[in-house]
Amino acid sequence: MAAIAFSRRLRRTNFAEGVEAAGAKGYTVYNHMLLPTVFRSVEEDYHHLKSAVQIWDVAVERQVELRGPDAARLMQMLTPRDLRGMLPGQCFYIPTVDETGGMLNDPVAVKLSEDRWWISIADSDLLLWVKGIAYGYRLDVLVDEPDVSPLAIQGPKSDELMSRVFGSTVSDLRFFRFGHFDFQGRDMIIARSGYSKQGGFEIYVEGADICMPLWNALMEAGKDLDVHAGCPNLIERIEGGLLSYGNDMTRENTPHECGLGKFCNTQTAIGCVGRDALLRVAKEGPVKQIRAIAIDGPVGPCDRPWKLMAKGKQVGQVTSAATSPDFGGSVGIGMVRMTHWDDGTELTVETPDGPKGAIVKEKFWI
Amino acid sequence: MAAIAFSRRLRRTNFAEGVEAAGAKGYTVYNHMLLPTVFRSVEEDYHHLKSAVQIWDVAVERQVELRGPDAARLMQMLTPRDLRGMLPGQCFYIPTVDETGGMLNDPVAVKLSEDRWWISIADSDLLLWVKGIAYGYRLDVLVDEPDVSPLAIQGPKSDELMSRVFGSTVSDLRFFRFGHFDFQGRDMIIARSGYSKQGGFEIYVEGADICMPLWNALMEAGKDLDVHAGCPNLIERIEGGLLSYGNDMTRENTPHECGLGKFCNTQTAIGCVGRDALLRVAKEGPVKQIRAIAIDGPVGPCDRPWKLMAKGKQVGQVTSAATSPDFGGSVGIGMVRMTHWDDGTELTVETPDGPKGAIVKEKFWI
Repeated sequence: MAAIAFSRRLRRTNFAEGVEAAGAKGYTVYNHMLLPTVFRSVEEDYHHLKSAVQIWDVAVERQVELRGPDAARLMQMLTPRDLRGMLPGQCFYIPTVDETGGMLNDPVAVKLSEDRWWISIADSDLLLWVKGIAYGYRLDVLVDEPDVSPLAIQGPKSDELMSRVFGSTVSDLRFFRFGHFDFQGRDMIIARSGYSKQGGFEIYVEGADICMPLWNALMEAGKDLDVHAGCPNLIERIEGGLLSYGNDMTRENTPHECGLGKFCNTQTAIGCVGRDALLRVAKEGPVKQIRAIAIDGPVGPCDRPWKLMAKGKQVGQVTSAATSPDFGGSVGIGMVRMTHWDDGTELTVETPDGPKGAIVKEKFWI
Repeated sequence: MAAIAFSRRLRRTNFAEGVEAAGAKGYTVYNHMLLPTVFRSVEEDYHHLKSAVQIWDVAVERQVELRGPDAARLMQMLTPRDLRGMLPGQCFYIPTVDETGGMLNDPVAVKLSEDRWWISIADSDLLLWVKGIAYGYRLDVLVDEPDVSPLAIQGPKSDELMSRVFGSTVSDLRFFRFGHFDFQGRDMIIARSGYSKQGGFEIYVEGADICMPLWNALMEAGKDLDVHAGCPNLIERIEGGLLSYGNDMTRENTPHECGLGKFCNTQTAIGCVGRDALLRVAKEGPVKQIRAIAIDGPVGPCDRPWKLMAKGKQVGQVTSAATSPDFGGSVGIGMVRMTHWDDGTELTVETPDGPKGAIVKEKFWI
């Protein structure tokens, strides 16, 4: 085990006090900020997430705010997903690409109004790309990182806990829609969303001062629901096929390779800077694609790509993996060439503990 | 102590095998990559750095490569430092700013030729800004991250070690100049530079395959010089006044606030996107500035800004601090308002262990 060296550059979130009191044992760094990765154990956190309710400090999902007359135009420049039909109150998952069609991020767009948007980002300084494009095109738009700290409530008892704090109307929210709710006189934007398949919400908390009061109120309200501090769970997110930018995909990959073709309206997303580059792949399809990979037996941490082999030749790589209590053996996410990506294809994965059997799956586990 | 959770997203460098074998005990994350922070102890590493020679895996200093007819024009857009007089073979420390004059990075520019440059970056995805500007302005230039892994040789015995591996002419290099040298038939760009005040070199190693052979050759050649694996040392870099982007300065700060006004030729750096915004501060000077801060007694890790107080009012903050074996008490870097930045001003710094006496210093320790 190696220690993480704390410094101001690895920013503490506005919920850090709560996270530390809850006994976070491990961290990763995400958008230059600390993200807890485990509280009790990854397995214990996993079972609890699937049965109760957790509060996650996901303030690392920094927002890029676009505000001004050209905000909508700039948004469309960033993604091959057609945003014309998107209404205020909606969240859209938007693959974000550069001029070559390479993935720069896979954020969630939050449309506050016609001229005000948030982009809730994965781990890259997307702000710099958006600012560069806005400046280069002389767009009439302000681009900045606001003081917004997302807090996720995840797990089967999320609706119950949220209703206690925000009133029962919060349960009326549909998936990837958001509404405005009151907490101690402050307006909170709450969406039904989150980085798990167990259901839940994300609260976009504006203002550092109200973060810990909200954290404490949720903890207090959920005592009899066995609420715990939690965090994105490696096992559960792999079982659910939730991709991780930087792990499962990088700037090297197109959205289509990442299985995100369904979010690309390449024909109609006029203005997207990567559109020209993606037209061909959108038509012909990618030659490799992300797949669920079942692996024999337990695995250690996947801290570098593991080669996927067939008859001594590399045909892909695994980029996320974890031993699964609920499904036996290990669950993984990998990128596989089209010659070997069919459901049920048997491969070998080269792990640090030696080669193991692997099977390509069409669908993820949950 | 909290553990760091390893994943592919926290990229291993091409020297990781050597770093791990040498027993790195702690890491930070820098440009989405692992950077070791301590081997034996920070104090032991410090004494050794000041007396012998160390090999540092600084592959986290990723390069942004600019190549093409518009490369020089794009370079000048990034910085208020006038680059017109810069020759191939030179390295320039270039504060890099956005359109508001806020610091985006403080990299070293490496001019390979008129139409080919590297930018050796600090911790932010500067690539995305450079690509955005290049795209927005339709510049005729390729911008990418090449397969280059810098390796630093630092300490008073650096010249001796480097001469053994690259021949004695490497000692002729002047500060912030680079030359081409051979290693096993491969061309290596070597500069006299590095993130310490103990003297030394940085080797820009092109190609993943040659990284460990070079690491091993240097280790072998330096055995009788007591060569050790090392890393940027927190204590020594504060004593030397070497700033850390993300710690001591952020996008909130102008170069002038960071004491980098001497690297800004705001009048003549025509084309710099932040020039207009910096003209006023360049003329009138900043209202706060980075200073060396001596602190009474030992300190723990500075993982968030510590307030600098005078008569109950905040007049600045400390952003880096460490107990200093050679200078007694603790050494720090902070940002102080002009009302209190004079040499010898006595302040109080609010540390997690309570308030401590602090003195503003005009100059750093080494």
